[in-house]
Amino acid sequence: MHYPLVINTCLSALGMLVTLKVIPQFGEVFMKAGFKGKDLNKAVQKEIPESAGMISGAMFLIIMFLFIPFPFLEYWVSVKPQAHHEFPHADFVEFLGALLSISCMIFLGFVDDALSLKWRHKLWLPTIASLPLLMVYFTTFDLTTIIVPKPFRPFLGLSIDLSLLYYVYMGMLAVFCTNAINILAGINGVETGQSLIIGLSITLFNLLELSGDFSEDHIFSLYFMIPFCAVSFALLYYNWYPSQVFVGDTFCYFAGMTFAVVGILSHFSKTMLLFFIPQILNFLYSCPQLFRLVPCPRHRLPRFDAKTGKLGMSYSRFKTSELNSIGALILKVCSIFHIADVRSGVGEDKQYTECSNLTLINFVLYVLGPTHERTLTIYLLTIQVLGSMAAFFIRYQLAKIFYDV
Amino acid sequence: MHYPLVINTCLSALGMLVTLKVIPQFGEVFMKAGFKGKDLNKAVQKEIPESAGMISGAMFLIIMFLFIPFPFLEYWVSVKPQAHHEFPHADFVEFLGALLSISCMIFLGFVDDALSLKWRHKLWLPTIASLPLLMVYFTTFDLTTIIVPKPFRPFLGLSIDLSLLYYVYMGMLAVFCTNAINILAGINGVETGQSLIIGLSITLFNLLELSGDFSEDHIFSLYFMIPFCAVSFALLYYNWYPSQVFVGDTFCYFAGMTFAVVGILSHFSKTMLLFFIPQILNFLYSCPQLFRLVPCPRHRLPRFDAKTGKLGMSYSRFKTSELNSIGALILKVCSIFHIADVRSGVGEDKQYTECSNLTLINFVLYVLGPTHERTLTIYLLTIQVLGSMAAFFIRYQLAKIFYDV
Repeated sequence: MHYPLVINTCLSALGMLVTLKVIPQFGEVFMKAGFKGKDLNKAVQKEIPESAGMISGAMFLIIMFLFIPFPFLEYWVSVKPQAHHEFPHADFVEFLGALLSISCMIFLGFVDDALSLKWRHKLWLPTIASLPLLMVYFTTFDLTTIIVPKPFRPFLGLSIDLSLLYYVYMGMLAVFCTNAINILAGINGVETGQSLIIGLSITLFNLLELSGDFSEDHIFSLYFMIPFCAVSFALLYYNWYPSQVFVGDTFCYFAGMTFAVVGILSHFSKTMLLFFIPQILNFLYSCPQLFRLVPCPRHRLPRFDAKTGKLGMSYSRFKTSELNSIGALILKVCSIFHIADVRSGVGEDKQYTECSNLTLINFVLYVLGPTHERTLTIYLLTIQVLGSMAAFFIRYQLAKIFYDV
Repeated sequence: MHYPLVINTCLSALGMLVTLKVIPQFGEVFMKAGFKGKDLNKAVQKEIPESAGMISGAMFLIIMFLFIPFPFLEYWVSVKPQAHHEFPHADFVEFLGALLSISCMIFLGFVDDALSLKWRHKLWLPTIASLPLLMVYFTTFDLTTIIVPKPFRPFLGLSIDLSLLYYVYMGMLAVFCTNAINILAGINGVETGQSLIIGLSITLFNLLELSGDFSEDHIFSLYFMIPFCAVSFALLYYNWYPSQVFVGDTFCYFAGMTFAVVGILSHFSKTMLLFFIPQILNFLYSCPQLFRLVPCPRHRLPRFDAKTGKLGMSYSRFKTSELNSIGALILKVCSIFHIADVRSGVGEDKQYTECSNLTLINFVLYVLGPTHERTLTIYLLTIQVLGSMAAFFIRYQLAKIFYDV
């Protein structure tokens, strides 16, 4: 057994217990400082602490800081002097660069929670936090060549050097991962639950690859994923329905950046993206609202029905005349293919149109009808698990068509 | 000229300009989010944004992230293949470890500002943030031998290995530097002013040593000190009397950790501490109150006199009977040697004792009498400059007695 992994697992278990103990202790401190929010999907809208993800993030950092020496220690304390020369400097540098990006992302996530930044600032935060990663990658590797999938090889050759484009890809991956988790949110336990499932899927993938040619890369990824899953589990314990804490943007950013970092540095960013299938669907489905082709309200949470105690679809309501031609076309397509619930000619003088908000959560409600919040979270997490199963199928079966596995 | 230093200076200048532009823009965002405080030393107690040090800290990180490749690039882009082998891995690791500690400290400082943590938590924050530094030091160097000063060599030999004690020393240095700046505070511009003077003193020291045997170490320190001075100057511009922003614990922690990091990694921690003479005096003078031997009020700011517009001493007032014997002895010594203003037998039934709060700021007011706030800041910064001059004298003249310079 690889002994640093054992130590990593022990530290993670310990960190999970400490997180479980600390989160309720800090509840009052958070509330006092104004880090609190109303749970809108409840009959009694109690205020609960917000941004508890900061505690998970801080605990993740502490676990990783304590773990720093272990993967590298054997090279220095070894009695064999020649072992000295084999010290994996590049790995150590990657390790620190990864931690730098994650710690910076947790910091900026907490700043976002504290200051409620605007959308145009939010997009900058993951870009800034991914800078150290890109710079470290540039300084030490600068390996920007990718293998071309088989069907395209007649045109493009076996590999192409993406050069600067590869850095753009890495930066965008960080921006995508952080925001993709942040927008599949709004019901108790869904942010933490999806992140935990992605984390566990990556862990499983790494374990499956441990005996392969790139075991070092997958061990590196496990060093980050095991503590991540541990602190996320502790957070989910308090974030599960009925939530005692909200996780805040801090957690979504922290989770997204951790995934991006291991995907990039352990060289499995394509497989990593496969575990984001529900997030990608949610993002694509949200695009018309995100890019304001269809009017988008400030919050797109489902709507709580106090009579039934269930959640139903929430709608965006706007004057039909406000819609431009692209928006109208999108709504028409949505309506014809039953992709969303569109009701035109409603309200006074029948001037208004209503469209169910374009989120995966609303879509599930559209298909299944009003659902209890806990059940809805379970449905969404089931979709996440099915997505991961599809990801494994694609990675291990379909990939043979495109690459020499 | 060393070209990475030129790039570092250019990036710092740019960062200073951006900081100057950004701080006022974010004022309202800070105020809205509750990051605000009343300026108690003014006739009209206006609320101004608090924790603006976060912006300086974030800008420092951005400058450093962009700067990461430059000191190391020549080794990789060099056309000479043999240059490849000379890549200073250890320097790169130190560089990233330093940034990790500083970014973690800025994060925890902002958490402290946001959540108003208790004192017992505050002491943990620099300890956590110094972990990556200690771990990186342990993994790569683990050099814990110190040169014994000449007078002690007959007993201790030329050098001793402090082993674990050296790590305790490094950890305590981080805790001391962060808190020492944090407690010499309370009047407009004094936190930023003292930090800037310390930063400039270290910069001057590094420049003086550039031609010496350890020029690499001092170049490393300059990489951090130049951007630090740049962002601190921008912050001081808005923090100077009358302050438009407060800097928050974020800045004090950020400054202290940056000093500790360069002191440790560039191996001049003793000289670095010499630039902390006023902070050390303030700490020693504060000890009776910090360790609760003499009752300590929540705030020890000087007292504003609305009639004269000047600041006077603030007092701690308590029942004489509440004082234990050590506290009584300390007050007796303070009174006899005129170290503080002690008035016993005051208040109803003459049961109370008043003692001027034991801070350097109060001591200056004790010696010079009531003073205008801006003048008081200038006095304190003058003491800081005199301290730095004394430090240079000690370092370059007195040190000859203790070490072979």
